[in-house]
Amino acid sequence: MPRILRINTRTKEYSFEEVGPYAGLGGRALTSRIINKEVPANCHPLSSENKLVFATGLMGGSTAANSGRLSVGTKSPLTGGIKESNSGGLFAHKMPKMDLLAVILEDKPEEAAPFSTLFITKDKVIFKDASDIVGMDNYPAHDKLLEEYGNKLVAGMIGPAGETVRKTATIQFTDPYKRPARSAGRGGTGAVMGSKKVKAIILDPEVNEKVSAVDMDAFKTARTTWVDILKGHPVTSEGLPGFGTSILVNIVNEAGALPTKNFRFGQCDHAADISGETIAETIQARSGKTTEGCHTGCIIQCSQQYNDANGEYITSGFEYETVWAFGANALIKDMDDIATMDRICDEKGMDTIEIGNTIAVAMDGGIIPWGDGKAAIELLKKVGSDDPMGMIIGNGVGFAGGAFGVERLPIVKNQSMPAYDPRAVKGVGVTYATTAMGADHTAGYGVCQNILGVGGTVDGHKKDGNVELSKNLQVATAAIDSMGFCLFVAFAVLDSENGVQTMADLVQAYTGNTFTADDLVNLGVNCMKDEQEFNERAGFTKMDDKLPRFFETDPLPPHNVAWDYNEDELQGAKA
Amino acid sequence: MPRILRINTRTKEYSFEEVGPYAGLGGRALTSRIINKEVPANCHPLSSENKLVFATGLMGGSTAANSGRLSVGTKSPLTGGIKESNSGGLFAHKMPKMDLLAVILEDKPEEAAPFSTLFITKDKVIFKDASDIVGMDNYPAHDKLLEEYGNKLVAGMIGPAGETVRKTATIQFTDPYKRPARSAGRGGTGAVMGSKKVKAIILDPEVNEKVSAVDMDAFKTARTTWVDILKGHPVTSEGLPGFGTSILVNIVNEAGALPTKNFRFGQCDHAADISGETIAETIQARSGKTTEGCHTGCIIQCSQQYNDANGEYITSGFEYETVWAFGANALIKDMDDIATMDRICDEKGMDTIEIGNTIAVAMDGGIIPWGDGKAAIELLKKVGSDDPMGMIIGNGVGFAGGAFGVERLPIVKNQSMPAYDPRAVKGVGVTYATTAMGADHTAGYGVCQNILGVGGTVDGHKKDGNVELSKNLQVATAAIDSMGFCLFVAFAVLDSENGVQTMADLVQAYTGNTFTADDLVNLGVNCMKDEQEFNERAGFTKMDDKLPRFFETDPLPPHNVAWDYNEDELQGAKA
Repeated sequence: MPRILRINTRTKEYSFEEVGPYAGLGGRALTSRIINKEVPANCHPLSSENKLVFATGLMGGSTAANSGRLSVGTKSPLTGGIKESNSGGLFAHKMPKMDLLAVILEDKPEEAAPFSTLFITKDKVIFKDASDIVGMDNYPAHDKLLEEYGNKLVAGMIGPAGETVRKTATIQFTDPYKRPARSAGRGGTGAVMGSKKVKAIILDPEVNEKVSAVDMDAFKTARTTWVDILKGHPVTSEGLPGFGTSILVNIVNEAGALPTKNFRFGQCDHAADISGETIAETIQARSGKTTEGCHTGCIIQCSQQYNDANGEYITSGFEYETVWAFGANALIKDMDDIATMDRICDEKGMDTIEIGNTIAVAMDGGIIPWGDGKAAIELLKKVGSDDPMGMIIGNGVGFAGGAFGVERLPIVKNQSMPAYDPRAVKGVGVTYATTAMGADHTAGYGVCQNILGVGGTVDGHKKDGNVELSKNLQVATAAIDSMGFCLFVAFAVLDSENGVQTMADLVQAYTGNTFTADDLVNLGVNCMKDEQEFNERAGFTKMDDKLPRFFETDPLPPHNVAWDYNEDELQGAKA
Repeated sequence: MPRILRINTRTKEYSFEEVGPYAGLGGRALTSRIINKEVPANCHPLSSENKLVFATGLMGGSTAANSGRLSVGTKSPLTGGIKESNSGGLFAHKMPKMDLLAVILEDKPEEAAPFSTLFITKDKVIFKDASDIVGMDNYPAHDKLLEEYGNKLVAGMIGPAGETVRKTATIQFTDPYKRPARSAGRGGTGAVMGSKKVKAIILDPEVNEKVSAVDMDAFKTARTTWVDILKGHPVTSEGLPGFGTSILVNIVNEAGALPTKNFRFGQCDHAADISGETIAETIQARSGKTTEGCHTGCIIQCSQQYNDANGEYITSGFEYETVWAFGANALIKDMDDIATMDRICDEKGMDTIEIGNTIAVAMDGGIIPWGDGKAAIELLKKVGSDDPMGMIIGNGVGFAGGAFGVERLPIVKNQSMPAYDPRAVKGVGVTYATTAMGADHTAGYGVCQNILGVGGTVDGHKKDGNVELSKNLQVATAAIDSMGFCLFVAFAVLDSENGVQTMADLVQAYTGNTFTADDLVNLGVNCMKDEQEFNERAGFTKMDDKLPRFFETDPLPPHNVAWDYNEDELQGAKA
């Protein structure tokens, strides 16, 4: 029986509860429902009234391919709205093996209270003094946890950025290679964990119960079809495994949609230097790994291990958005500098998209020179300390813009945009504007139809069809996030006749509850409604579903396309 | 004929224009109408699309008592909403003597452009290179301007805080004692001036045309009545001249409404040390001045000159809100430290209310110890430099809260509250919540009826009557600000049967246009409507007309009163 574990971080009381009113939900649908129902929308995100929810998806714990993604939900310190931040790692598949559907951190200790590590067993939560790892970067702290708990360690933890409640703070999760390299990256979830004085959460390595599908025959059939679908699509079977997500650098640059120099241009002169092809060559020459999975059961393997010139590990989980943010948007050409920054972000526990954009804003404000990777690295190292520059950088683009007097800020709901310029990829621009999350490509990835020709074709330069496109993608994404699937399955599902039905079949066979394709859509729609409802109560209106004005006034080279939606048109993308 | 002077700060073109559609408006009604009609509500406050308007009131240039207040209007970098910041000094009375009703700064130069000083003559605007005073504090820069332009200098200028576009930046104006001690304090107007690369505006000392009332007989009669009203009320004739605005320290403390230790308590143990009575004694013992006016024609004389123990000038225009912010809210006991901070704020060009509250937040976040005036002084000195701590402090309470991880932030629309706790003075609390300005006591001073017994009595601990009270006061205040009267005339007007009629008579006699008591009310109502309309287009809703949640959850000692309005109740205070 899946259970919800509530932990009061002030009183150190806890309870394992029945799922009750949350039955039938998982992943993002569950975190967003809990936040919407239980958190006062106008509370301060760092206050005792906020909650932090970790939820496995409906398929969590199963052997279906790519079904081990984790949802982390809270009221975001970055946006002031609801947040679901999605991560790989071992946490989501482990939870069901402890009969856990969700873990909720509640309340918060006194200001001066020490940090704790929460050790969760099958029926207990043990608050351990975390003073031996407080202040430490994530990799060395994770190494200490490995020493203490052994090789079966499954942890979620915050670095110095989270401890100091920075708005960019991530929660990092143990990956299949014993590294804390997977991130619930966006929206400052790590700051909420820091405000609750929790340095790490450990799931008991000794508990590992097998979770069987309720209808095993049907499950096996659907699982095979599912693998065929994923293996049958060139993006999920060739592009992503071959070159990682950075295969997009050349593609998006070619399309004139690669935001460059703080969103001034759509193409970057040195795109080839930071392309997936170049990265893959470099990795191979340095005995790294071009294919890794972020969680067990992944058959796409889009992740890599990037080594330095001596073959020493620098970083992994090194994504296109990270490469773009430092490489194109901040004009840094040196891939080793970019990889080092990815590592520092994982060490301090910071969102690479937000931080990369923040570095571009620091360059725009004259704090460091454009393209200066070494200077950027020094700025990143300050985060998590009591250095005021670290306080600024660690709080993201909107904050840094206020500190440095920069008005060119590519943000929606105070969250900065990922690696696709909304003027040239309007399908994703509509998502940036309208999702409850703030600017977020993963909430409705219009890049598929606007650029990749996956799931059909919609012109990304024109308004026609992109509001409807974004809405459909947002619904589908919310459902995928709720089932615990990796978002990249969408590439295959969008071009597959039976993709949606197969996902529904998997849920029905695994859970034993009737679950149709319509139920899948409703799961997504209701999830979005929870998120919109929370944000409305927090004071968001259609006036917050807008892009910054410079996207309207400054056309994007080379195609000279501008953003031209009014707020009423955009409301069509809401659930 | 009054004219509007438009100055394009990028092209250096200018035009003296007829008043046209703005006829009949003055002061705040004029700045708010211009901003509402001419500035895109969703533009960035530091962008070329924002404007900065200086307007004299309908009574500007007249010999009516206390009619020389200046309105400075813009889209606020602090709140993101419309802003009218009101100042004393010589600017407002001087403008009509040059046939100027308003001066509008438009557009902005390139990022790397040097700062200019604008020298305004009767028919020209001369852009002078300001490099000799750029980076200088306001007093020494003002001294240089005095050297260059002589003793008749009338200037408005920004200090280092404005040059570096801090959100707390003021514009400082020449006072009657040749000091830049009067401030358009709130909302970051100085940052907008800084973004337009204007260090100072000088009104030609050689032009000083007498402005006569159109109906001189009626004007003289009304003017005499007006003096009788002001001289006949104990607050304007005895309290304010005798002890300055800090007479309120003991009164508000006694009422349990003096916000103490970042709005934790309603009474301060060392209130007597920072009271108006103590300040007046100290001033007298040190050969300072207990009475000064902020502009010519002032007969209330609530200002002072505060000297150090050696009789050397420290500061003037040293107000209750300043004394409270550093003294009670940041627990600093040493009056000389507080006076020094007031001076530093005038030197750097920073709002003392916002900065005092920011110091309290820095103390709450453990950056400096509670009550440590010397440490606070060091923090203030950093503002306007490239020190990141100065960037943080100079951006005010909301920003510092984000940097220091403090969730207890007494702000509305990101502007921090003045010296009256809204839980115990609900009349002013309603104003904080609902005025378009952000938390602002001067927008509707419910303290009169809640504490002072001026204009009747309304219980400040209870909800009954305070929404209506606030609305009436907000309308009256908008009218007073539009006529150019000092807000303190309201003390006398509220207790006078013919106060409103006399103000209307003065306007009618001075301008020659029919102006009834109803017209006066409509002036205020329409001004508020302009402000509300702009904010609505900028995305503000009733959800922004709220106080932070801790005012609801934490009752205020000693009377243990909490804030208990819902947002719909509060809408009754809007125009």
